[in-house]
Amino acid sequence: MLFLDVLRKKREGHHLSPQEIAFIVKGYSYGEIPDYQMSALLMAICLRGMDDEETASLTEEMLRSGEVIRPEEIPGPKVDKHSTGGVGDKVSLVLSPLAASLGVKVPMVSGRSLGHTGGTLDKLESIPGFRTQLSLMEFKQNVNRIGVSIIGATKELVPADGKLYALRDVTSTVECIPLITASILSKKFAAGIDGLVLDVKTGSGAFMKGLEEARSLARSLMQTAQRMGKPAIALVTGMDQPLGRMVGNATEVQEAMEILHGGGPPDVVELTLELGYQMLRLAGLCQDRQEARRQLRSALEDGSAWRKFRELVECQGGRLRCLEDFHGLISKRVHVVTSQTHGYVNAIDTHKMGQAAVVLGAGRRRLGDKIDPSVGYEVLAKLGDRVEKAQPLARVFYRGEADLKEARNLLLDAYNFSPERPSPPPLVYETLEHTSK
Amino acid sequence: MLFLDVLRKKREGHHLSPQEIAFIVKGYSYGEIPDYQMSALLMAICLRGMDDEETASLTEEMLRSGEVIRPEEIPGPKVDKHSTGGVGDKVSLVLSPLAASLGVKVPMVSGRSLGHTGGTLDKLESIPGFRTQLSLMEFKQNVNRIGVSIIGATKELVPADGKLYALRDVTSTVECIPLITASILSKKFAAGIDGLVLDVKTGSGAFMKGLEEARSLARSLMQTAQRMGKPAIALVTGMDQPLGRMVGNATEVQEAMEILHGGGPPDVVELTLELGYQMLRLAGLCQDRQEARRQLRSALEDGSAWRKFRELVECQGGRLRCLEDFHGLISKRVHVVTSQTHGYVNAIDTHKMGQAAVVLGAGRRRLGDKIDPSVGYEVLAKLGDRVEKAQPLARVFYRGEADLKEARNLLLDAYNFSPERPSPPPLVYETLEHTSK
Repeated sequence: MLFLDVLRKKREGHHLSPQEIAFIVKGYSYGEIPDYQMSALLMAICLRGMDDEETASLTEEMLRSGEVIRPEEIPGPKVDKHSTGGVGDKVSLVLSPLAASLGVKVPMVSGRSLGHTGGTLDKLESIPGFRTQLSLMEFKQNVNRIGVSIIGATKELVPADGKLYALRDVTSTVECIPLITASILSKKFAAGIDGLVLDVKTGSGAFMKGLEEARSLARSLMQTAQRMGKPAIALVTGMDQPLGRMVGNATEVQEAMEILHGGGPPDVVELTLELGYQMLRLAGLCQDRQEARRQLRSALEDGSAWRKFRELVECQGGRLRCLEDFHGLISKRVHVVTSQTHGYVNAIDTHKMGQAAVVLGAGRRRLGDKIDPSVGYEVLAKLGDRVEKAQPLARVFYRGEADLKEARNLLLDAYNFSPERPSPPPLVYETLEHTSK
Repeated sequence: MLFLDVLRKKREGHHLSPQEIAFIVKGYSYGEIPDYQMSALLMAICLRGMDDEETASLTEEMLRSGEVIRPEEIPGPKVDKHSTGGVGDKVSLVLSPLAASLGVKVPMVSGRSLGHTGGTLDKLESIPGFRTQLSLMEFKQNVNRIGVSIIGATKELVPADGKLYALRDVTSTVECIPLITASILSKKFAAGIDGLVLDVKTGSGAFMKGLEEARSLARSLMQTAQRMGKPAIALVTGMDQPLGRMVGNATEVQEAMEILHGGGPPDVVELTLELGYQMLRLAGLCQDRQEARRQLRSALEDGSAWRKFRELVECQGGRLRCLEDFHGLISKRVHVVTSQTHGYVNAIDTHKMGQAAVVLGAGRRRLGDKIDPSVGYEVLAKLGDRVEKAQPLARVFYRGEADLKEARNLLLDAYNFSPERPSPPPLVYETLEHTSK
């Protein structure tokens, strides 16, 4: 097989066979196909697309590029959740111990903040001592012992994805549904899960801003999971405003802990319950939605989810004592941004809100940038809220004056007001599922 | 300006500005843009296209990547001819000295055989001693002294094209009209010509097999030349059978010498006269087609074109004595391929005919392969000819038995017969022109 023949086929818009896709992924992983040929193929895939069979083959081959956890290595129902990324989305911090406290095994492979979005690993690392780079052996042991562990992609797990992602990042081939699908699912399925709940974000703070685009990604993820024989459920959910109130790293851990104590803002609690119900379903631990939500609520209120969270933190080296006075980890330099006009909050440019967090130092502009866990902000006005002139919009926890100035402008710019109260956007737009193998 | 922003623009199908194209060509020439980014852009250009302004900007920037001959360095009307490549196309060998003998200055930058097609430089190098790698200085001096010189692309002339072509060759981005256009025109216009005659081939032996494709390339070449203020004329001509009788290198030089003595097969003579008329027109040396053709015929018959050819050979180091017994340079191992059936020659797969020359050793499969100047074949049956069983189809001049066997099968496969006499295809399908600046 010649790489150029495969490349020409895709350039002309033809279907690639599983053998051709295996040849490409192996050849690139082993360094036999040079970057300059692979990048031409990636661009051809972006512009010509891949059908479901091709996407499944690509996912399968990427998955096989490294070690794979066999289902019998972690007994019990193993379900993970993945979000396509947003602003203020701390659901994983709550949901992973919550689901584990109800008997689900959660071997979670998670990501870092990139662009305007936050990342679960960075948030967890705001807990002093917390290690997200575990060996696969330690990861499996943790899941087997306490039911949950959260790590980043390792060199053992899906090495092809690391190499491909780095090339996509510098060749404008990141935003491509089949490539996104294969990247997400290969990592998730390499962790040996039985089922996957997908939270596909849509709206101004999502990567896929348009609803149709988000639906296409959700469909691609679902169909690929189905072809690979893995039950999956995808929720298309709104990211037209930050989720909950807190944005940042330590700030979001603090809010997650509030939820784990039975409190927290209603939107993030509601989404956690809905995604939790789907995880329990895929784990075969419930049938009835009402009953599942009741169990989840109880676990939040009776302290069992909170205890599981403490086990998770302890297991991965985090200092439990720090959880007791978490306020101390948030920057003491506080500035309140106030509204310069009045009206109902009609729209929030959530991409700008995310950028505000980045300029404060809570996010990174490029992979490898260092983040400041102590900075962030609290959102004080959400969609549909009535705001008077000089009323607070956000409380900013900052480090440098220049950062504050830039973040303040972004936050003020992000808000749009109208004289009439707008109808609130839905939290969940739709649910796609296939739950049998 | 960031390369990734430009790449994203093209990926999304937007127009690139002249500044953006200059940034790309300079960045790639200077080694600031790596191959793996450039190949992604080339693929995006292949699939998204470039409009006339973009193609002209690309041509202009490639042209400027090296030295450019200023018009005043070669006084007089300077016109070149370019063919997109075919089988048996030895027109340049005849036309360049022919036009020069009538007062046109012909600074010809030519190419080598590639794929199934022959190349003028390889044919000329079958003349012992003939040098096609001259310095730009020597090239200009030759044109000024005798009116004609033929060289290959040098490192001084359009270096960006050499680098880009090598990358296109290994990333399946050769067949792309704007990239082909910029590659051809940048080289031709860097030689300081006033006008250009283009012979765009269509049919089974052309790179652009379909008529519509060939028309698109002709239109792109014309519109780009026009935007660059260079008069040009494009003929779309048939390549549904080899041109003339001889295919190879020394074999084609021999046929060219026949034509330069007033003889030769009618199709190649007719095409030479037609292209010659267009060169004279662009040079401002004639208005009337009949009168131009009469002059061209005279120059072939009275020996003036032949004398100019000898000057060209002498000027570039070729041994004139070898021209006297040129038969001696053609392989003495001869095999006649005979027909296995009877009927009228209805179609000739000219791509296969070209491949037969390659397997004999007359062409190259990859840039850098060595060719054998002595091998080739004579076509003994052309479209519309009546052929009886066991009648000769081709006389093959070969070196090795294995090559002969493979070539013989290709030649036999290439011929298609029918019981009815087919109508012959046109030699010239259409002429596109703009002759004012």
